[in-house]
This record gives sequence, structure tokens and C-alpha cells, in this order.
Amino acid sequence: MSEKGRLIVISGPSGAGKSTVVSKAVAERNDVCFSVSVTTRKPRVGEVDGREYFFVDLDRFKEMTDNNELLEHAEYCANSYGTPRAYVEEKTEEGLNVILDIEVQGARQVADKMSDAVKIFIIPPSMDELRNRLEKRGADTQRAIEARLIRAAQEYEEADFYDYLIVNDDADRAAAELSAIITAEKCRFALRKERLENA
Amino acid sequence: MSEKGRLIVISGPSGAGKSTVVSKAVAERNDVCFSVSVTTRKPRVGEVDGREYFFVDLDRFKEMTDNNELLEHAEYCANSYGTPRAYVEEKTEEGLNVILDIEVQGARQVADKMSDAVKIFIIPPSMDELRNRLEKRGADTQRAIEARLIRAAQEYEEADFYDYLIVNDDADRAAAELSAIITAEKCRFALRKERLENA
Repeated sequence: MSEKGRLIVISGPSGAGKSTVVSKAVAERNDVCFSVSVTTRKPRVGEVDGREYFFVDLDRFKEMTDNNELLEHAEYCANSYGTPRAYVEEKTEEGLNVILDIEVQGARQVADKMSDAVKIFIIPPSMDELRNRLEKRGADTQRAIEARLIRAAQEYEEADFYDYLIVNDDADRAAAELSAIITAEKCRFALRKERLENA
Repeated sequence: MSEKGRLIVISGPSGAGKSTVVSKAVAERNDVCFSVSVTTRKPRVGEVDGREYFFVDLDRFKEMTDNNELLEHAEYCANSYGTPRAYVEEKTEEGLNVILDIEVQGARQVADKMSDAVKIFIIPPSMDELRNRLEKRGADTQRAIEARLIRAAQEYEEADFYDYLIVNDDADRAAAELSAIITAEKCRFALRKERLENA
């Protein structure tokens, strides 16, 4: 099967358990890889160019945005980050589904530039449960937790462009749903149409 | 989980292995049932009303078509057959995914009346393989096989309104794809939107 892979865009509030769900789903598949971002940030010890990030200088980053080489980009702590279109296209051409874990605004940029991206929003079962998880995690001050909850509510309001919604009340079920979506999206009629034409 | 089920419309040429694929997929799920058709044909020995078919007289059948109670209907050997909308709605309300195995023309009628039906086309890997399977099955004369192949080619040309295409070169993989599509289609953002709103 030389079928093209899909770009799988995943968003959801911090504390939704996205990374657990994604790693459970990915563990059972051999047709998935992660998107590698471009950044102007300096590499840290142990980071390898092309593995954690593609490290570029600001001139090259600007060139990439000007040439429409990035599916989305944003600034964070005075550094620029972006998703290189070429990497995504190379991997999907190889038949791999590329997972891009990204915030809602970035996801919307990607959706605008790549209409066939599969967009999945992952949420916790309730805001109360989100608060519980953030408090249990203990990584944030109470004030930071309130800010995260407000941000989550904002993201929910902007999330109507996603294709799928996964409610992470059970990480195994949520991972099974994510995996099913990836499998199903490879079966899209439009993608396999040539199989009919060549039959 | 009180999520609504989906109507899953499945078509494909005779000899594609549809029923094998469907029964393998259904065997692993407890959230699937089959659509039960209405017919004007007389019940055969052992057939139970509401199980194999809903048996009605011609007047009632006409009333059903007039009142838009059928998602599709057709004549076959001087009897009328149709898919009752009420049964599909009742089962999907209960959370069951309803499988409807039907020809392309019927599927198109259903698609027109129920825009959220999930439409899946199942094909054999090639026309040569379809011929092999029909010959091996031994149920048809050579002439009937030629007719089936011509019909399959016609159906392929009319199949562009299906959402998904499954190529049955391996029944286990094809069944896994079918099952993944059912799972994925229950995760549609629009269907679960209230989960966000009530969060």
C-alpha cells in the first residue's frame, strides 16, 4: 500500500491529557510520526537538529514565512517557532501520518493552509475535572491554574473548526478513538479514488 | 455515554466480500445492529415480522412512501422493499449504529434524505480478482458473471458520493477499517458539540 499519510492536528487545553492519549495511540501504530518544528531558539545540550527542532537563524525563519514554507508560526519567549510544510509533505508522501500538537490559533492557521488536515480537539470530561487535574499535577500556582481555566474556556469557544472531539474521561478509550480516526481518515473516498479508477 | 448512533450505509459489487467484512467488524462491537427492511413480500416459513423484515401490505407500503416514512425503496421480483426511517431513528437514538447494506441507487436515495448517513463503498482489489471470486463461488453462470462485472463497473462510475472507500484485499484489515470508521464517525465534532458547551 503506497497510500499517502494524513496531517493530524491535535489541540486541547493543558491538563486534558493530550500527550498520554497521543502516546497510547501512537504506541500501537507504525504509521505515525511527529511533526518537527522550526525554531530560532538556540539548541540546548543534547538536542539534535531535525530531531527536537530544526534550528535556524532569524533571517532564514523570515525567509520561510515570506516564502509560505510554514503551515503556521508564532512567537514564544522572544523566539519564533513554526511548522515546516516541506517536512509534513515529505512524511505524508512516505505514507506516514504526521501528528502536530498545537494550540487552537496555530491549528486554525494550519487549517487555512492545508484544507485536508484532520483536526482533533481533546478535552477533559469537565472544567471541574480539568481544575482537579491541574491541581493534582502541582506544576502551577493557583493563579496560573485560574488563567489556564480561563484560557481553556476561550479555546472551547474558538474550537468549532475541528473535525473531531475526543472527551478524555478514559485514556484508553480516548486513545482508541484517536487511532480509529487516523485509520478512518486514510479510507476517505477522495484519497482512494484512483483505486476505483484503476480497478 | 448517551451518544446517538450513526446510520452506516454500505455498498459494493456482489463478490466484493461485503458480508464477510461486515460480520467480522460487527463481531467485535456491541454498538451495532442491522437495518430491518419493510417488504410487501409474504413471509417465508421461519421468518418473524420485525426480525427478517417488517411485512406490510401494498396499501401500507404506498402510505409509507407517500408519508416519507422510507429512506429509500425499490421493486424486486414484483415485490416492494424499503428502509423505514422510524426504525433507523429509534435505534440510533438508543446509541446503536445501524448498518444498511444496499445498492448504489438506494444508497443515493438514503444520502439525499439523511445527510448525516455515513456512506462506505467496499470493493475487491481489482476487476480480475472480482471475476476470480465470482467464478470460485460458483453461484452464477458465466453469462451472469459477465453481467455482474458490467454492473460493478457501472456502480464504480456512480460511486463518487460515498464518504469512504475500503479495498477488500484482506478481510481482517478491511473489517478493522470499517470498525475504525464507525468509531471515528461517533467522534464527529458536530455530534459532540454539547459536551463542549456543557463543560
